[in-house]
Amino acid sequence: MSKKQSSKELEVFTNPNPDRDYEINMECPEFTCLCPKTGQPDFATIDITYIPDKLCIELKSLKLYLWSYRDEGAFHEKVINEILDDLVKACRPRYMQVVGEFNVRGGIYTTVSAEHYGKSGTKRKSKTKRPSS
Amino acid sequence: MSKKQSSKELEVFTNPNPDRDYEINMECPEFTCLCPKTGQPDFATIDITYIPDKLCIELKSLKLYLWSYRDEGAFHEKVINEILDDLVKACRPRYMQVVGEFNVRGGIYTTVSAEHYGKSGTKRKSKTKRPSS
Amino acid sequence: MSKKQSSKELEVFTNPNPDRDYEINMECPEFTCLCPKTGQPDFATIDITYIPDKLCIELKSLKLYLWSYRDEGAFHEKVINEILDDLVKACRPRYMQVVGEFNVRGGIYTTVSAEHYGKSGTKRKSKTKRPSS
Amino acid sequence: MSKKQSSKELEVFTNPNPDRDYEINMECPEFTCLCPKTGQPDFATIDITYIPDKLCIELKSLKLYLWSYRDEGAFHEKVINEILDDLVKACRPRYMQVVGEFNVRGGIYTTVSAEHYGKSGTKRKSKTKRPSS
Amino acid sequence: MSKKQSSKELEVFTNPNPDRDYEINMECPEFTCLCPKTGQPDFATIDITYIPDKLCIELKSLKLYLWSYRDEGAFHEKVINEILDDLVKACRPRYMQVVGEFNVRGGIYTTVSAEHYGKSGTKRKSKTKRPSS
Amino acid sequence: MSKKQSSKELEVFTNPNPDRDYEINMECPEFTCLCPKTGQPDFATIDITYIPDKLCIELKSLKLYLWSYRDEGAFHEKVINEILDDLVKACRPRYMQVVGEFNVRGGIYTTVSAEHYGKSGTKRKSKTKRPSS
Amino acid sequence: MSKKQSSKELEVFTNPNPDRDYEINMECPEFTCLCPKTGQPDFATIDITYIPDKLCIELKSLKLYLWSYRDEGAFHEKVINEILDDLVKACRPRYMQVVGEFNVRGGIYTTVSAEHYGKSGTKRKSKTKRPSS
Amino acid sequence: MSKKQSSKELEVFTNPNPDRDYEINMECPEFTCLCPKTGQPDFATIDITYIPDKLCIELKSLKLYLWSYRDEGAFHEKVINEILDDLVKACRPRYMQVVGEFNVRGGIYTTVSAEHYGKSGTKRKSKTKRPSS
Amino acid sequence: MSKKQSSKELEVFTNPNPDRDYEINMECPEFTCLCPKTGQPDFATIDITYIPDKLCIELKSLKLYLWSYRDEGAFHEKVINEILDDLVKACRPRYMQVVGEFNVRGGIYTTVSAEHYGKSGTKRKSKTKRPSS
Amino acid sequence: MSKKQSSKELEVFTNPNPDRDYEINMECPEFTCLCPKTGQPDFATIDITYIPDKLCIELKSLKLYLWSYRDEGAFHEKVINEILDDLVKACRPRYMQVVGEFNVRGGIYTTVSAEHYGKSGTKRKSKTKRPSS
Ligand SMILES: [Ca+2]
Ligand SMILES: [Ca+2]
Ligand SMILES: [Ca+2]
Ligand SMILES: [Ca+2]
Ligand SMILES: [Ca+2]
Ligand SMILES: [Ca+2]
Ligand SMILES: [Ca+2]
Ligand SMILES: [Ca+2]
Ligand SMILES: [Ca+2]
Ligand SMILES: [Ca+2]
Ligand SMILES: [Ca+2]
Ligand SMILES: [Ca+2]
Ligand SMILES: [Ca+2]
Ligand SMILES: [Ca+2]
Ligand SMILES: [Ca+2]
Ligand SMILES: [Ca+2]
Repeated sequence: MSKKQSSKELEVFTNPNPDRDYEINMECPEFTCLCPKTGQPDFATIDITYIPDKLCIELKSLKLYLWSYRDEGAFHEKVINEILDDLVKACRPRYMQVVGEFNVRGGIYTTVSAEHYGKSGTKRKSKTKRPSS
Repeated sequence: MSKKQSSKELEVFTNPNPDRDYEINMECPEFTCLCPKTGQPDFATIDITYIPDKLCIELKSLKLYLWSYRDEGAFHEKVINEILDDLVKACRPRYMQVVGEFNVRGGIYTTVSAEHYGKSGTKRKSKTKRPSS
Repeated sequence: MSKKQSSKELEVFTNPNPDRDYEINMECPEFTCLCPKTGQPDFATIDITYIPDKLCIELKSLKLYLWSYRDEGAFHEKVINEILDDLVKACRPRYMQVVGEFNVRGGIYTTVSAEHYGKSGTKRKSKTKRPSS
Repeated sequence: MSKKQSSKELEVFTNPNPDRDYEINMECPEFTCLCPKTGQPDFATIDITYIPDKLCIELKSLKLYLWSYRDEGAFHEKVINEILDDLVKACRPRYMQVVGEFNVRGGIYTTVSAEHYGKSGTKRKSKTKRPSS
Repeated sequence: MSKKQSSKELEVFTNPNPDRDYEINMECPEFTCLCPKTGQPDFATIDITYIPDKLCIELKSLKLYLWSYRDEGAFHEKVINEILDDLVKACRPRYMQVVGEFNVRGGIYTTVSAEHYGKSGTKRKSKTKRPSS
Repeated sequence: MSKKQSSKELEVFTNPNPDRDYEINMECPEFTCLCPKTGQPDFATIDITYIPDKLCIELKSLKLYLWSYRDEGAFHEKVINEILDDLVKACRPRYMQVVGEFNVRGGIYTTVSAEHYGKSGTKRKSKTKRPSS
Repeated sequence: MSKKQSSKELEVFTNPNPDRDYEINMECPEFTCLCPKTGQPDFATIDITYIPDKLCIELKSLKLYLWSYRDEGAFHEKVINEILDDLVKACRPRYMQVVGEFNVRGGIYTTVSAEHYGKSGTKRKSKTKRPSS
Repeated sequence: MSKKQSSKELEVFTNPNPDRDYEINMECPEFTCLCPKTGQPDFATIDITYIPDKLCIELKSLKLYLWSYRDEGAFHEKVINEILDDLVKACRPRYMQVVGEFNVRGGIYTTVSAEHYGKSGTKRKSKTKRPSS
Repeated sequence: MSKKQSSKELEVFTNPNPDRDYEINMECPEFTCLCPKTGQPDFATIDITYIPDKLCIELKSLKLYLWSYRDEGAFHEKVINEILDDLVKACRPRYMQVVGEFNVRGGIYTTVSAEHYGKSGTKRKSKTKRPSS
Repeated sequence: MSKKQSSKELEVFTNPNPDRDYEINMECPEFTCLCPKTGQPDFATIDITYIPDKLCIELKSLKLYLWSYRDEGAFHEKVINEILDDLVKACRPRYMQVVGEFNVRGGIYTTVSAEHYGKSGTKRKSKTKRPSS
């Protein structure tokens, strides 16, 4: 049984409130790819925070994009930067951060986090952490 | 059985301490609306923090206002900005932030947070997070 | 915007392992109905555990069935027994328990739990609580 | 400002499902009374679990009943038994347990729990603890 | 049984270390007052942080002062500012913050936090949150 | 500064509800004594659960009794049995359990728990664990 | 990049202590398969508890066996029974339980748990839950 | 730097209360040994519960005994049974359980638990879990 | 049995890395002293963070120093400043903070935190809170 | 059985995204060494955060490097600075922080944290704490 719907295509829609710098955080705990060296499955939570400019990332297409890594070899450091680049290319945000928390391997927990500053002067207003978590 | 009490009307009362910039945080874990595409129910916690100027938001009317979304289609990004705009229009605060943490959909947790700076120079004094939580 | 897909119809499929008494637990934290007296929204987690006989409950239809309560008046004690009766009628299980944890109202947290013993001699093997929770 | 609505009167309604032994748990974290010796406020969570026979306890009246202790002196051991007796008298349940977890006093946390077996042969089916807590 | 020891009188003692700006945090989870509209009991945690100048607040008298609200009507926004004003008047601190986390009412959790800057240039050194919590 | 109030004397009062087997749990997280070998301080939580017969243990005297160990040498295994014996002698309960959770020493956490069955046939009804914890 | 090491082959080794009924619990939070209807990825924690007879399951081969589901369609109810059958066939244990906690789908959390009683009279001694969790 | 103090010698002392069946639980979160196949370090929490007969295990010697595994190869299943046998031989208890929770290896968490019934008729009174944890 | 090893003497050793501003945090949850007014035992966690200059505090001597308060009367505000002064005198650090979280008394939790700035320009690099806690 | 694979050799690979200042956090909860004074085992979690320049630390070699301390005497303050120096020498990062949280010894929990600023002007962008933890 193969998954045919995953795709590298990221769909966007028009930002409903371009006049304001507001933050969107999307946390995806079900990311899995393969270790390029051993072919063994790797698991991570991908946490994306961005301040949209003209465009927003469409949720379903983000899901399909992340599934596209299921059978791909991906080094922790490289893949997080790759995801940031792909998302930035798709919606050219004012600001974006992608954080990848990888499950333990060899007794070590790895977390990689990369940021992109689109429009100069845009700084993260509030920590869009789950206030109630 | 239909709900007739919900209403878009936001009631206010006079700020008892206008001489001081103090913060009010109101967390409403029982927000539900409909996904505009699928009509399926969506659930979220709405977390509102503001520094009142002349007026404060009356609690009961905030409850009825939030219920008014129960049968409405609402996109995550749009509805949080809409709630912020409605609340700002009602009480013209010195500062206000509205955060919406939406339940998981398609394996992704979305949190949207928007801010409004009324009186210039007003900055958030203290993180009105629940100190004891 | 009205939800038309919700329905009282519960779909089932053939139990793949009728030779064994095994347990299925389905926890639905997004249940909402209306208080019959005040019309105000009520929220609950519905936790269903059952040992199937010939039939299993189809997940999607359970979701639509639970949505059917969104605009209905429902007393806590009555609605949990009603859900148990409906589910038992649909799949005539060897054993079933339905637990409803209702959000706080008037400072009180209410939990109602009802059980059905279909085939005599069927006793709950293991507490199908999330071992890793 | 005195509270006039509290009352020792416990209202009941007819059990909608008398044919089944099902459990109702009501947890009230906002119980307060006075220490009979020092007059100092005492705080507790009252956790009530019962299997109704012909009658169920009406939620609002339980709230008003518990408020009636606000200005009364109450020894931990005595008051929990008193609450159990009052509730049993009001609805003559098949089974009932009342647990009172009192806040720390003098560095000691006290919990008192009393049970009533109405109909012989009625045993607690399932631990009506909040499964999802 | 009435409580006679509560009093609005706040006692103080001389600051043992006036030469240093150090912080004192006092968290009182057992605050209760009445809702001015409905007369129903309200419950909150009051969290006080201050940098003393010449005087410190005596613990026992703070306890009696907070009890004095047990039978008083108090709006959330107003009462937190009132407590801050009373405490500031009693010990004229270099800095003080009072935070009130009120229990859920109508499905909404309210937290009010107000600050007082006594001596200019005094800024909060360290977040006197319970490091080990 | 020496502590003079601690005493081995345990005071009791008449059980208000001798007709019923109900449980009292008293948890004291502030127990400290000395290691008999090294003289170094030891810390523990003492958790007492009992079903009273004619007499109940008076809270304040329990506090003073536990303080009496502050400067005494006490082996974990021995002292828990000693406390159980003293408490049983004072109130001759139908059932009693004393559990001592000692802080880590040499990387090992020790917990000792002893039970006393007074009246034959008395079995622990409900786990008097803090239901809401 | 395809995974070639996964395999349905389960390797075993001789039980070092066949004279005693002892329990082995193996929890695998990194299980993923595909939904047979939609082809979308599904995620679960598989929790295995067994009392070995002559043979024990070799850890590495269990890992490769569970990976073999990565690209397979698997219904929750069916796959848990299938895993139990495969493991029982490989080591013919005295007792075995397999529990699958599946991530939320359509707002519902599903947990399936099946048991196998090999040698009659073997009952689960202790709840091999992580005592320290 | 080699550790010379670790030793397989287990020291005991006379049970101060042989007339009573009481339980001692000793939890050692700092156990480490080597994987026999790869030589890689393995880490576990060893949780020991026993009802002493004439003899108790001396804490310090238990610490040195557990350290003796630091440089030894040890299979999970085998080593837990070995520790149980050694402890039983040293103090011939009425009942003893040894549980080993091993850190994750290859994405799998293993827990092994073995029991010994010395004196027939001795059954575990109370779950000596940390009541306050 | 009196404790003779406790002493006010604080021993130090040479800072192994004086060229770098690094932080040392030492948390002591087993601090106990007496209330000067009532003689009743008081319990606290003392949390010490400092950037050493030429000298570091020796762990064992810190333990003995903190034990020296076991039988001393100590006001919360005073004793935290006293501990800071003693530690600063012993090792003249570039920066030091002492925080005392005292157990609840009269329903109030007190936390006192004082800081010392030795070398001007030394500011706390990173929050040496337990990252993994 | 001795471990031969551990080594002080730290392997690196080319930074895939040198054009961006991104953060890598690696948390190793399984660090153990010996106390230089007593030879007793010590346990810690080592938490490493760095912004790579041209080179990244290879995960497996970090694991082997940390194992090399298993049989070495190491003072808390010294060893954390040593690890930072070794890692900095291996990959000359723009920024690096090493934090060591040591298990409790003598009732005290020690945490040592040291930082290295490679390229001037590099400041830590985001707190690479596990956002979802
Ligand atoms: Ca790729
Ligand atoms: Ca909040
Ligand atoms: Ca609308
Ligand atoms: Ca606090
Ligand atoms: Ca488990
Ligand atoms: Ca009364
Ligand atoms: Ca559940
Ligand atoms: Ca700390
Ligand atoms: Ca409860
Ligand atoms: Ca298959
Ligand atoms: Ca344990
Ligand atoms: Ca334990
Ligand atoms: Ca307890
Ligand atoms: Ca002194
Ligand atoms: Ca970390
Ligand atoms: Ca997040």
